[in-house]
Amino acid sequence: MNETSIETFPNPEPNRRYIITHVNPEFTSVCPKTGLPDFGTVTVRYVPRQRCIELKSLKYYYLQYRNQGIFYEAVTNKILDDLVAACDPEEMTVITEWRTRGGIHSIIEATYKRPNTE
Amino acid sequence: MNETSIETFPNPEPNRRYIITHVNPEFTSVCPKTGLPDFGTVTVRYVPRQRCIELKSLKYYYLQYRNQGIFYEAVTNKILDDLVAACDPEEMTVITEWRTRGGIHSIIEATYKRPNTE
Amino acid sequence: MNETSIETFPNPEPNRRYIITHVNPEFTSVCPKTGLPDFGTVTVRYVPRQRCIELKSLKYYYLQYRNQGIFYEAVTNKILDDLVAACDPEEMTVITEWRTRGGIHSIIEATYKRPNTE
Amino acid sequence: MNETSIETFPNPEPNRRYIITHVNPEFTSVCPKTGLPDFGTVTVRYVPRQRCIELKSLKYYYLQYRNQGIFYEAVTNKILDDLVAACDPEEMTVITEWRTRGGIHSIIEATYKRPNTE
Amino acid sequence: MNETSIETFPNPEPNRRYIITHVNPEFTSVCPKTGLPDFGTVTVRYVPRQRCIELKSLKYYYLQYRNQGIFYEAVTNKILDDLVAACDPEEMTVITEWRTRGGIHSIIEATYKRPNTE
Amino acid sequence: MNETSIETFPNPEPNRRYIITHVNPEFTSVCPKTGLPDFGTVTVRYVPRQRCIELKSLKYYYLQYRNQGIFYEAVTNKILDDLVAACDPEEMTVITEWRTRGGIHSIIEATYKRPNTE
Amino acid sequence: MNETSIETFPNPEPNRRYIITHVNPEFTSVCPKTGLPDFGTVTVRYVPRQRCIELKSLKYYYLQYRNQGIFYEAVTNKILDDLVAACDPEEMTVITEWRTRGGIHSIIEATYKRPNTE
Amino acid sequence: MNETSIETFPNPEPNRRYIITHVNPEFTSVCPKTGLPDFGTVTVRYVPRQRCIELKSLKYYYLQYRNQGIFYEAVTNKILDDLVAACDPEEMTVITEWRTRGGIHSIIEATYKRPNTE
Amino acid sequence: MNETSIETFPNPEPNRRYIITHVNPEFTSVCPKTGLPDFGTVTVRYVPRQRCIELKSLKYYYLQYRNQGIFYEAVTNKILDDLVAACDPEEMTVITEWRTRGGIHSIIEATYKRPNTE
Amino acid sequence: MNETSIETFPNPEPNRRYIITHVNPEFTSVCPKTGLPDFGTVTVRYVPRQRCIELKSLKYYYLQYRNQGIFYEAVTNKILDDLVAACDPEEMTVITEWRTRGGIHSIIEATYKRPNTE
Repeated sequence: MNETSIETFPNPEPNRRYIITHVNPEFTSVCPKTGLPDFGTVTVRYVPRQRCIELKSLKYYYLQYRNQGIFYEAVTNKILDDLVAACDPEEMTVITEWRTRGGIHSIIEATYKRPNTE
Repeated sequence: MNETSIETFPNPEPNRRYIITHVNPEFTSVCPKTGLPDFGTVTVRYVPRQRCIELKSLKYYYLQYRNQGIFYEAVTNKILDDLVAACDPEEMTVITEWRTRGGIHSIIEATYKRPNTE
Repeated sequence: MNETSIETFPNPEPNRRYIITHVNPEFTSVCPKTGLPDFGTVTVRYVPRQRCIELKSLKYYYLQYRNQGIFYEAVTNKILDDLVAACDPEEMTVITEWRTRGGIHSIIEATYKRPNTE
Repeated sequence: MNETSIETFPNPEPNRRYIITHVNPEFTSVCPKTGLPDFGTVTVRYVPRQRCIELKSLKYYYLQYRNQGIFYEAVTNKILDDLVAACDPEEMTVITEWRTRGGIHSIIEATYKRPNTE
Repeated sequence: MNETSIETFPNPEPNRRYIITHVNPEFTSVCPKTGLPDFGTVTVRYVPRQRCIELKSLKYYYLQYRNQGIFYEAVTNKILDDLVAACDPEEMTVITEWRTRGGIHSIIEATYKRPNTE
Repeated sequence: MNETSIETFPNPEPNRRYIITHVNPEFTSVCPKTGLPDFGTVTVRYVPRQRCIELKSLKYYYLQYRNQGIFYEAVTNKILDDLVAACDPEEMTVITEWRTRGGIHSIIEATYKRPNTE
Repeated sequence: MNETSIETFPNPEPNRRYIITHVNPEFTSVCPKTGLPDFGTVTVRYVPRQRCIELKSLKYYYLQYRNQGIFYEAVTNKILDDLVAACDPEEMTVITEWRTRGGIHSIIEATYKRPNTE
Repeated sequence: MNETSIETFPNPEPNRRYIITHVNPEFTSVCPKTGLPDFGTVTVRYVPRQRCIELKSLKYYYLQYRNQGIFYEAVTNKILDDLVAACDPEEMTVITEWRTRGGIHSIIEATYKRPNTE
Repeated sequence: MNETSIETFPNPEPNRRYIITHVNPEFTSVCPKTGLPDFGTVTVRYVPRQRCIELKSLKYYYLQYRNQGIFYEAVTNKILDDLVAACDPEEMTVITEWRTRGGIHSIIEATYKRPNTE
Repeated sequence: MNETSIETFPNPEPNRRYIITHVNPEFTSVCPKTGLPDFGTVTVRYVPRQRCIELKSLKYYYLQYRNQGIFYEAVTNKILDDLVAACDPEEMTVITEWRTRGGIHSIIEATYKRPNTE
């Protein structure tokens, strides 16, 4: 996986600290234990520095997980790592909310803050 | 664009710090990449100093974007810049929330604080 | 206007700091520019000292605005001034939320804090 | 207007009477009286015969109204006429629901039934 | 009252039976018993013949009730009578829904059908 | 009980068949088995003939049940009987919806139609 | 199972056809296949003849399923059979709505009508 | 009133600071001015020390207000005083939310903190 | 596709006409035009005769579409055909509701009725 | 009870402080006083250190309470103790929300923080 790269474009207002949020309610991956699909909503919220995430490439990045086996906790942290690597933000939070499995639904939330910032 | 100026009127209570919010759920502009329209809700929240934003001129200001190509991040920051220039507030936040494109919906939030305030 | 005075009654627990909220979703006044009625919800939230606002007189106080021309920002600040004068609270917030005009709806929020308090 | 034609494709199940609904909450046209934009949701519901409406061409068909002046009642009937002409259905209903103007919101609903049907 | 007349315009599609609905959530009149204001939502739904109701004149028609004393049942029937007289429809329904008074909220629904129709 | 009589007033439009609904979400009576209070919403919907139910007397009528022991099924039928006796309508429906007791909530719906009508 | 009998009481208005509904959102039984609990809402709606279902005994009747293995379709029909046997109604409908299992939620609806009725 | 005492039981985890909330949407008392019933939701939230409030006795405590005349502000503070006296908590908040009276609904919120705590 | 067969089990109450509904909000297939995934909710509602659909095999049947390219109209009719073939019901309806594509969301509804029934 | 152990797996990102939430709306236990079942939603939110809670074993852990008599306050604290013992987290909060009993619904919230942390 991960052959599709996340594209970025120059932040139109790099001198102002502002917040960008992208919500994808159509995320799906595969449970590595059961082989059955998982469905969830992935929310990315970040403060850009020099680069912003390009929306269409983000969509294709998410599509790569469609048939990949990966646990909730791992995919949340991996999305955060990949997006931080792509756009080097001031800070970024990734929240994944999963549909009910075995009567339980789960939410994972991970945050990155740039070292030595502010 | 921007031929229509944002009008203002004197703040009726300039000695009290209070908050004014205007929500426009009928904002539309054009995606510069695809030429297709974008639809969103624009929320402006500010603490006035000497001048308040006149509501009708705000409506006409928004109408100027109807056939203009501009990205989410850029239009959010431009609205903030234009409105700050028009009324010189203590502080102002502009939030744009966009309808789903490619299965993803986005929210951009930018804030201005007057230098040397408080 | 303002011939109707806001009545008050003794705070039954003046030694405890507590919060009283009154929400009126049936407020109406007149736009001074167009002569057309405005409709809104007025919320008053305060910490009483010696006196509490009597609910029925508050209703009649609001009725006085029914045919009066006054702007959003002005009426919000005036209600705050009148109610503070009537009951001398520790602090009070008035929030007015207005129905859509020209596709935009507005919210005004003003707060009073008693000097030298706390 | 109407230079963009509505495309169709062969109904995959012409022997079964079934119902197709397409909901577009991003419709906008222009009020011929005020020159200001109108915003609404257009719902098309039909029973196909030999041809189904192609979704992408429907989107482009709607875009043609973006800068056209036309009244609620007229645009609802025109969409019905155009779509009936394009796909010759057993029956079709078009419902337009419009955002508040002057404190009033409106809904128009028009239905076509094929003559000598059933 | 009733000095303001309801204006109409030619039905753009007089040969098709279709339905027009106008919803006004900002109706207010006065209770003749208590002198206090009543607030409600008025919905008008009709099948036009030769004439449609013009929206702006409908708004002004409703404004005439703002300071008039009239009971729920009477005002509902009067609006129906006035609008039927103005546009001579195939059929029309007026529904008024009133905010809580004395812990009870009320809904009145009256319908007109043109004699010898259908 | 039943010392308070339900008052009526002349139907302002006795020649038109129309529908009046009164919803009281603040009904309370007492369970005859446990002595504990029951809480519910009572909805009355009727087509008037010569007389309409006066709203304030309806409120006082409901208050009579506050400390009376009576079962769901009985109180629903009794309200219907009393209101039919008071105003002699074309038809009337009484619906009572009760808050959860023992994990179960209940709804009772009874209808009266005038004999030899229509 | 079924040791607990459903109790009934005399219908207070046997001459009027009216509807009684009892909703239990706390039903639970056990899946006979997996041994895992199922959770659902059971709604019973019926027109009584001579006897009404007593609410407390209904609650205890439902409790009998708590540790019993039974399929959705079977339990719905069994509840209907048992309640019809207990109170001999004009007609009765039982609806069971089940929480998600394997990403799918299910609803079963069964109706009894008394032979030779109406 | 107040003949019914609030019962308590030993806190099962007195060494951990945790929060208990009880919400009663079926509270009713009487307005001392009009003699008419008031309806509201009472929420109690507290951090227990040695004793927890027993739920059934709390229900009976609330029932004592059913026919008692008392103002919103007074009843809120009295419930707080009585419950604090009964269980001596670290801290406790009582919130009462009242149904609309004269078009206005009210919320009262009072908090107790144990002296010398934390 | 279709290697996975839909399993059935004997209807526990073949003499009663009743309704079974299974709702799957986690359906996904692929758009044959764009290669991008579609997401939707599939609802199956049927009256069984001798056989009921087994829930787990239904889940696996739906999974077969995960990477298959197929249009909305075609997949709806195909699911109906396959399920009718599997369990030979009195009647069956399949409804597919699809997430927004190009600003438009769609609903397809197809019904089968057994010939010579009732 | 407690024969079923809670299983854990290695935290895939032990160097990042992130939050995991599991919500179970299908929890049921038995009231020790009445012997009747209680129903609630149990939410567990924690910051993992070396181990994460395995979801399937959590489901089976909850099932152990199905026929056990235990009070709200006790079960909330016991779940917290058991889960902390199982995975040794940085911090953990357990919230139990219970369905209405005697007209009152309750919420219990308990938090653990690891000593000498942060």
